[in-house]
Amino acid sequence: MSVTAAQGFEASGVEAGIRRAGPDLALVRSISPAVGAAVWTTNRILAAPVVVSQRHLEVAEPQAVVVNAGVANAATGAAGVADAERTAREAAELLGLQTEQVVVLSTGVIGVPLPLEKVVEGLREAAASLGADGGDAAAAAILTTDRGPKQAVVRADGFVVGGMAKGAGMIHPRLATMLAVLTTDYALDPGEAIDFLRPAVDESFNRISVDGECSTNDAVVLLANGSSRVARSFGRDSEFGAALRDVCAALAREIVEDGEGATVILEIHVSGAATDDEAVAVARRIATSPLVKTAAFGHDPNWGRVLAAAGSAPWNGGFARIDVDRLSVTFDETAVFERGAPTGAVPNLGGAGVSIALELGLGSGEASYLASDLTYDYVRLNAEYTT
Amino acid sequence: MSVTAAQGFEASGVEAGIRRAGPDLALVRSISPAVGAAVWTTNRILAAPVVVSQRHLEVAEPQAVVVNAGVANAATGAAGVADAERTAREAAELLGLQTEQVVVLSTGVIGVPLPLEKVVEGLREAAASLGADGGDAAAAAILTTDRGPKQAVVRADGFVVGGMAKGAGMIHPRLATMLAVLTTDYALDPGEAIDFLRPAVDESFNRISVDGECSTNDAVVLLANGSSRVARSFGRDSEFGAALRDVCAALAREIVEDGEGATVILEIHVSGAATDDEAVAVARRIATSPLVKTAAFGHDPNWGRVLAAAGSAPWNGGFARIDVDRLSVTFDETAVFERGAPTGAVPNLGGAGVSIALELGLGSGEASYLASDLTYDYVRLNAEYTT
Repeated sequence: MSVTAAQGFEASGVEAGIRRAGPDLALVRSISPAVGAAVWTTNRILAAPVVVSQRHLEVAEPQAVVVNAGVANAATGAAGVADAERTAREAAELLGLQTEQVVVLSTGVIGVPLPLEKVVEGLREAAASLGADGGDAAAAAILTTDRGPKQAVVRADGFVVGGMAKGAGMIHPRLATMLAVLTTDYALDPGEAIDFLRPAVDESFNRISVDGECSTNDAVVLLANGSSRVARSFGRDSEFGAALRDVCAALAREIVEDGEGATVILEIHVSGAATDDEAVAVARRIATSPLVKTAAFGHDPNWGRVLAAAGSAPWNGGFARIDVDRLSVTFDETAVFERGAPTGAVPNLGGAGVSIALELGLGSGEASYLASDLTYDYVRLNAEYTT
Repeated sequence: MSVTAAQGFEASGVEAGIRRAGPDLALVRSISPAVGAAVWTTNRILAAPVVVSQRHLEVAEPQAVVVNAGVANAATGAAGVADAERTAREAAELLGLQTEQVVVLSTGVIGVPLPLEKVVEGLREAAASLGADGGDAAAAAILTTDRGPKQAVVRADGFVVGGMAKGAGMIHPRLATMLAVLTTDYALDPGEAIDFLRPAVDESFNRISVDGECSTNDAVVLLANGSSRVARSFGRDSEFGAALRDVCAALAREIVEDGEGATVILEIHVSGAATDDEAVAVARRIATSPLVKTAAFGHDPNWGRVLAAAGSAPWNGGFARIDVDRLSVTFDETAVFERGAPTGAVPNLGGAGVSIALELGLGSGEASYLASDLTYDYVRLNAEYTT
């Protein structure tokens, strides 16, 4: 259970026939009115469900989320927007909500129209099978080429935060997307959810990289219904923020571990940057470097590639500030480069994880990043299917 | 012949024992005084020869270039800078020049000291074997894991531009670098070479991508000695600029064609961008997208991945402007996406090259990019060697 772990939430997952086989349509709703927010892809090309859901969230607080897998409904023009809108309207009618209270998300092939009749029929079945035990079915129905469902729950003092996600699996041609749906029975005021959601997303989903790609459909949605009836306080708000961050971090890690072809997880930590922004830029550049990622696959403690990547991290129209004479690099526990000079130490990178730490010696900027390696399987998965 | 095609240039290439086997030390010099310029890597971490050569070019016009392969002399601290300086001094003494008239370039393993005695001994041999027929030997001695030498010559009305390059082959652990040395017998005034060199480099070497990496050692050096004695004019200056661009473009294409594991060359053209800068950003993002590059390897006309990449091209702290409803995409001659909607056409991408053209419909910004695909061999070459 994940999205139904918090009180007052129901979910379901059904096989609507949108993709070739398996469950492909998930429904999540709060029984009572909820508030919510979403963080969306920053891609300039937005899928139709993103456009429609953004409009809905501008005018109403959400109470239900529909997710379909198999077709991304992206690059589908005005017809795609009408299809996404129709999906929301059908769900709203089935659930007794306003259309604007429904968030719609899609993941799958780009440039293919949504099979609307199948979606509508699937929605009827999904609405009929909604239940407090439907979290697992919903988590299974949003997957595409993920190896398995991704769920996380944190039970705090008097309330619960739960969530499900699907990974950045882009195996099938023109397939997209990382999605997450989060629910809580903590009470938030209208308009307030985004203030909790954005920092949690920034420190988790925005700090992972499988292949550095940013899809047209990425979305993280939070619904909060207050069903726990626990009294709010400054302390509990912090606790809620922490629980939300923990759920996001757990789901983000599951996405990287299930990254396409992944065999090694890189934990990258940059400290001592001139600013936090530059720490993020350096960490991201290392996390997306093909040379660092192939070295990780080969269990090669190749700090030269880490240096070259760190020195070319795009920031502010140029590169993030680095002074090689103040820079130190550690692989796992072994210092390989200290203040501008190699130490000569060669760490043994045998395992399924490697931590790479850079101390830049310039300031107090800090950031962490999780990444998967670049492997034969990544190439195979993304090259072998042809349109 | 390449760097010795222009009058008054001599070159040589010898086996100094810096790398395991094969020629690894090249020398190029103008017999008479020359002027020159260089464009360097923008990486924040500069190899020692880059630091030293930048200083030299600030105080003197160059007349000779030393290139060693096998050791990059990068991340080697103050000792590395002293080694690079000593290399220049030795070459200057052998050639009867000032130390500051010598440019030194290195390519190879990062973090390993230059074997200075071998370099000095090799320099003696290289100086003794300098000749107008030494271009091929020099072009062979700057290679590392390149499959073959890269040379280009343009003979214009009364003067010649020639050049040699090595590719972005980063096969061996911690190996770096793209290098090019260009020579001409056209006459340029002191300080003037950079005005011709920079635009030529921007349109060629800065518009290619094998894996999007930027090394600590990248350099393009131009020497001009005026030995052709052809009179300068406005028209001939343009002709010289065009010849220089052509030589750079030819060498850049050879680098991509010899990209690690490359089987398909992508020619990316972006037009109709709001600005030229944004056209470059979009073209570069597509050229470095692992999903686009694996699709090319699989001969998959996957325009969905091209769209997703185009929509997330870093520019000016955000993404380059795109309006999907004005966007059209063509693969080879086939329109696959027109003004926001798929055409349904499926081009056949069977060959060793594919052209991807995007018309953004926003303005007159334009840019081209050349890239290689992402293949099993790229992963193998970069993962199988361990330090």
